[in-house]
Formats: sequence, structure tokens, C-alpha cells
Amino acid sequence: MQADSSPFKARQARLQALLEERRLPALVVTKPANIFYLTNFRGSAGVAVVGPPKPVLWVDPRYTVQARGSAEGVQVREEKGRLLEAVARWLTSKRLRRVGYEDSHLTCRGLRELKETGDGRLRFRPSSGLIEDLRSVKDIDEISRIREAGHLTAAVLGEVIGKIRPGVRESEVVAEIEYRMRRRGAEGPAFETIVASGPRAALPHARASAKPLARSELVILDLGAILAGYRADMTRTIYVGEPSRCVRRLYDAVLEGQACAIEALRDGVRAMDVDAAARKALRRRGLARHFTHSTGHGVGLEIHEGPRLGRGEKTRLKSGCVVTAEPGIYLEGFGGIRIEDTVLVGSEGPEILTPAPKDLTFIS
Amino acid sequence: MQADSSPFKARQARLQALLEERRLPALVVTKPANIFYLTNFRGSAGVAVVGPPKPVLWVDPRYTVQARGSAEGVQVREEKGRLLEAVARWLTSKRLRRVGYEDSHLTCRGLRELKETGDGRLRFRPSSGLIEDLRSVKDIDEISRIREAGHLTAAVLGEVIGKIRPGVRESEVVAEIEYRMRRRGAEGPAFETIVASGPRAALPHARASAKPLARSELVILDLGAILAGYRADMTRTIYVGEPSRCVRRLYDAVLEGQACAIEALRDGVRAMDVDAAARKALRRRGLARHFTHSTGHGVGLEIHEGPRLGRGEKTRLKSGCVVTAEPGIYLEGFGGIRIEDTVLVGSEGPEILTPAPKDLTFIS
Repeated sequence: MQADSSPFKARQARLQALLEERRLPALVVTKPANIFYLTNFRGSAGVAVVGPPKPVLWVDPRYTVQARGSAEGVQVREEKGRLLEAVARWLTSKRLRRVGYEDSHLTCRGLRELKETGDGRLRFRPSSGLIEDLRSVKDIDEISRIREAGHLTAAVLGEVIGKIRPGVRESEVVAEIEYRMRRRGAEGPAFETIVASGPRAALPHARASAKPLARSELVILDLGAILAGYRADMTRTIYVGEPSRCVRRLYDAVLEGQACAIEALRDGVRAMDVDAAARKALRRRGLARHFTHSTGHGVGLEIHEGPRLGRGEKTRLKSGCVVTAEPGIYLEGFGGIRIEDTVLVGSEGPEILTPAPKDLTFIS
Repeated sequence: MQADSSPFKARQARLQALLEERRLPALVVTKPANIFYLTNFRGSAGVAVVGPPKPVLWVDPRYTVQARGSAEGVQVREEKGRLLEAVARWLTSKRLRRVGYEDSHLTCRGLRELKETGDGRLRFRPSSGLIEDLRSVKDIDEISRIREAGHLTAAVLGEVIGKIRPGVRESEVVAEIEYRMRRRGAEGPAFETIVASGPRAALPHARASAKPLARSELVILDLGAILAGYRADMTRTIYVGEPSRCVRRLYDAVLEGQACAIEALRDGVRAMDVDAAARKALRRRGLARHFTHSTGHGVGLEIHEGPRLGRGEKTRLKSGCVVTAEPGIYLEGFGGIRIEDTVLVGSEGPEILTPAPKDLTFIS
């Protein structure tokens, strides 16, 4: 007999073990990324309950066929009314008394629905983070999907950089990037692609605008593809024209900060120490106060997930964590520089999943 | 003196009046679409409080420059810590006692943060839907943005239909659609573009796959662009090859259902009556049980917003409402047909904002 190799059933079993540890008989899962992680069902609406004997997934009639076709290891139930009410009725019928819910995802109204439909003896307990903890260490299947998304993203960036010229609009560069992602098989961009030039590059989360790229400007390109549900995230900064010595010095400082962060990405390191490594390099150049965000974040089914590489984050990274390393500096009125890769914390050291050159490419 | 023509300040004043009616001294706004609607700030993270004398908007340091540059009629505050805690401290310092919050958006954890930081006398009251009610009737500025997004979407569809051939993959059609949207100035797709062919068209929310289009198949194309924050939504169904009489009959039934729904879209009509109009047409052809979703929904800053055109919805539509009319039928194993437009309920009758032909285009 062949062993059951479904990664979804394996994840359900790991969650089941966590619930037993915490003496929680069941967990109501509402966050779509978590439902996909556990069951392989990717609809935008669904509620799962994990607890013995077998997880149950409620979907509305739009998703019944899709759920029955894709979900693994769960019983699928179609519900025409409100999903959370059906869940509360089921929990009551099973005489459950103490049930976890995802308090960082479930809305106040959702919880009220659960409480009002369940009988008075059913108690709900905030339990966000259990599945996110499991998700922060990726399994082999997940790593290979993120690697594929990362390589695809890097290849698209390589193609598009060659097309950048003064006069091309930021929004046109975004169109090229996303088109090429799709043509290479991506499901779409992993987040709103950023192309920000000149003073706009000083806004860490600028949207692309109709502004044409001009000479003597820095351009930040921040992009990522989704492939089979998994995301990659990378940023490169280029210069249109011949960069001054000052621009080169700023760039080298960020590059050095990133190298220090990547070098620190080892099994067992505390997240805050990776952040400190990047920050220290920028402090040496007197630039720490322009580095206004944290050094990185986990990437996977969501573009921002755990662990966060920021000040005060004591979590220890493990082999199998996938995070970004993305220091940046932002000078209001002038522009910004950010360099970012998606990196796997591997047992044999860090592996860059978005491999692409990092020279301050200049287009003249 | 010129009158202040900021639509944002006008919306703030309308909300202020609603709050006074309900004797709510202030409302904590967390939903990004509502914050954009009220303030013109479009970051992904921010919290606003509307209440006299002037609305306040808290943002984290990533968004300070952007918020100060774009927000209208509000005081912008940068907060390095947790935004909701800053909000609760501010509410306490203003000695407010009774404050509304968006219970359909705020998570259980978010509410706990507010409660734990505020002093014991600060009470929070579920108040979702106030801003959504305002948003369900669009102002002139909004209507012209949705019209522009709709015309752009229709133009893209017209271009892309000409490129459809047997052998082209669903995902390639999506790539073409989204690329052309961007080239025409869209900020991106308003939702995950659907191209679903053959039996896959029986899944109302199928994702595009790598499946090539084949002869003798129905293909559903469901697309929409975002322009200046506003969304459009349209669907056309085409046939690859020469459609049989049976396929034509099914198509004509859906087309008739849609025409009945659009015809019903008048100032004062109840939402449920628009739904009933489409459903009745399909019932006459014996197809009502294959029409498994509601007839339409509001569109604007979000792809699904109020009013919902479904069974039991007694809301009366007003001139200025923008909704979809999108009956569809789905036959498991065979395929599906859906025809959808974004429609303005105008004082002089319905205006289709996504004008494009609706013949059962056949590609041979």
C-alpha cells in the first residue's frame, strides 16, 4: 500500500495535534488563505471547522462543484443560507462547548452571528495564529512553488529592465511586468506592482502613476508573481542616466544592508537580529533614520505573513522559513532606494529565490 | 468667494449629519474603501475618526507623505505604534463616551485593542453600513469615473474577442485583457478576470486555467477595470464554432432575462423586483433552477457593494445607484452562459455603462 502523500491531510493532522495540545476540541477557520492551506479549496467564500473526526467545509452554491473537485481530506457541505449560522448549528448539534476562532480575521459581526445562532453553552475562544504558525515553516511542496514564482518574477524583471527608457510611463512599465508574468504562467501579480520614479520613489508604497520616467531619476520596481497560489516578492532600484557619486554611495549602503540581512538568515536566528544586521549597516553610513520600515516579512500564500523581521521580534527563524530581505532608504523630495529578495532559510544557508543582478543598472 | 467643491468634504458633511441623527458623537472608520471615499487617502493601512470638529486620519510612517499630499478635509496624524491604540487614546482624551465602529469590517482583535486601550467609560457601538448607505448612491464625480472604467472595459473586450481562437489558453486571454486595460490607463483589473471555457464555464467563479479553448465550447469572459479607484464589471459569453439550436435557445433565454432586469432598473424599484424580473424570464423557459446566484450587485469603489439585487431585498433603488445586471445559467458538465453589464439607474432610465454587443459571437 502506498502512504497517503496529500500535503493537505498532513497539515490537517499537524493542526489537529496543536488543537489537542491546547485542549481545543475544534477551530472555526474563516481566513481564505488558511482554508486553502488546509484543504486545497481556493474559493473566496467558505468556512472550515477542524476537529475530530474529519474537517468539514461549508461553501455556498457557487462553489459546490469546485469544492467537491478540489478539497482534500474534508467533508464538503453546501449551504444556501449564511455559512456561519450553519457552522454554529453544526457545532451545537455536536454538543461542542469550547471552540476556537480566528480573532485576527473574523469580524465582530461574524462572531456575533456564531454566538447568536449557537446555544448558550457554546463558548468561542480567540485562537488566531495557530495555522499561521504552521504556515511560517514551509513544506517541500510549498518551497518549490515559491521558488518557481520567484524565478519567474526575476525573469520578468530581467526582460522589462531592458525596455525602460526616459519617456515611458510608470503605468506602462507595470503593464509590461504583469503581462509578462501572465504569459509565463503566473496567476497574476502577488500585490499591486510598484513602479515609482523620481521624488515618487520616496513613498515606500507609491502606486504607479501616469508619470513618464525622466533622466537623472531613481526608479523603484517592486513586483511579485503568484503561481499555484504562492507568492514571490522582489524589488530592484535602477537609475535613468549616469548616477552621481552621491547616488552610488547611497545605493551601495542599501546593497550592503541587504547583504548583511541575507547573511544573517540562518536556522535559529532571532527575527530582530536580522533586522538589526541591516539597520547596523545603514547606521554606519549615517542613513538609519531614512530606513523607515522593517527589514522583511514572511511570504507564501499571503504577501505579508509571519515571521516579521523587525525590531523587538524575538521569534527564531527555522529552516523552511521564507522571508524577504528588503532594506530601503527614502529621502523626501529626492527619491528612494530599496533592494529586496525573497529568501529561503535553508539548512545549508540562505537561498535567494528571486535571483537577479543587483548592480545599479544605469540606462543612458 | 468660490464654494468649496471638494466631494470629500461634502461626503464628510453627509456622514456627520447621519451621525447626528443617530446621536453618535463619532465613528471609527477602518475599511479602506470607506476611508478613501471620505478622505481621498488610498493607503492600505489607516484609521479615520469622523466626528466634530474635523475628521482625523491616523497612518503609519510609510504613508505619511502620501496622506498629507492627498487627504482632504482631515487632520493627518502619523503613528509609529498600533493605529487602533492611538485612536482609543485620542477618543479617551476627547472624553467621548459612545463611539461607532464598523462591525462588518473590524476584526474581533481590533475591537479588543480599542476596548483595552480606551478607559472604561468609552463604549463602542456596532455601526457598519452608514458609509455604505451613502456610497450606494453615487455622486456626479463617481458616476463619471465608473462610466469611464466601464467604457474602457467594453473597449478592451471588443479588442480581445477578435483574438480568440481554438488553441489559445484561458490564461493567455486573461493576460491580453489585463495588459490592454493597463495600456488604456486602468490601474488594474477590478477583480480576478474570469475566462472559463467548456465544462469549466459551469463554475460561476472559475479561475482562468491553462486549458486551451476548443471548438464547440462556450467561453465566459468576466472582466472589469479600475480607473481612479472606481470599478466596472461586465461579462460576455461567446461560442467557439457554430452554435447548435439548443445553445442559441439557452443564450437567448439569458439575454432576455438580462433585458428584463435592465428594463426594471428605475428610480424607486425594489431590488428584489429587479431580481424577480430576470428570474421570471428564465422560469418561462424552464431554466430558473440553473440560475444559481442573484441578479446583480452594486459596483463602485468595491466590486461587490450595495444594493444587492436578490430575493427578499426590499431596498428601493435610487437615481444614482450603479449596479450589475447579470443573470446566468450553469449546467454541470456542459458549460455556462452569463451576460452582465454595469448599469446606472438614471433619472431618465437605465444607462448601460459597459456598452458592447451581445450577439452570441461565434468564432469558426
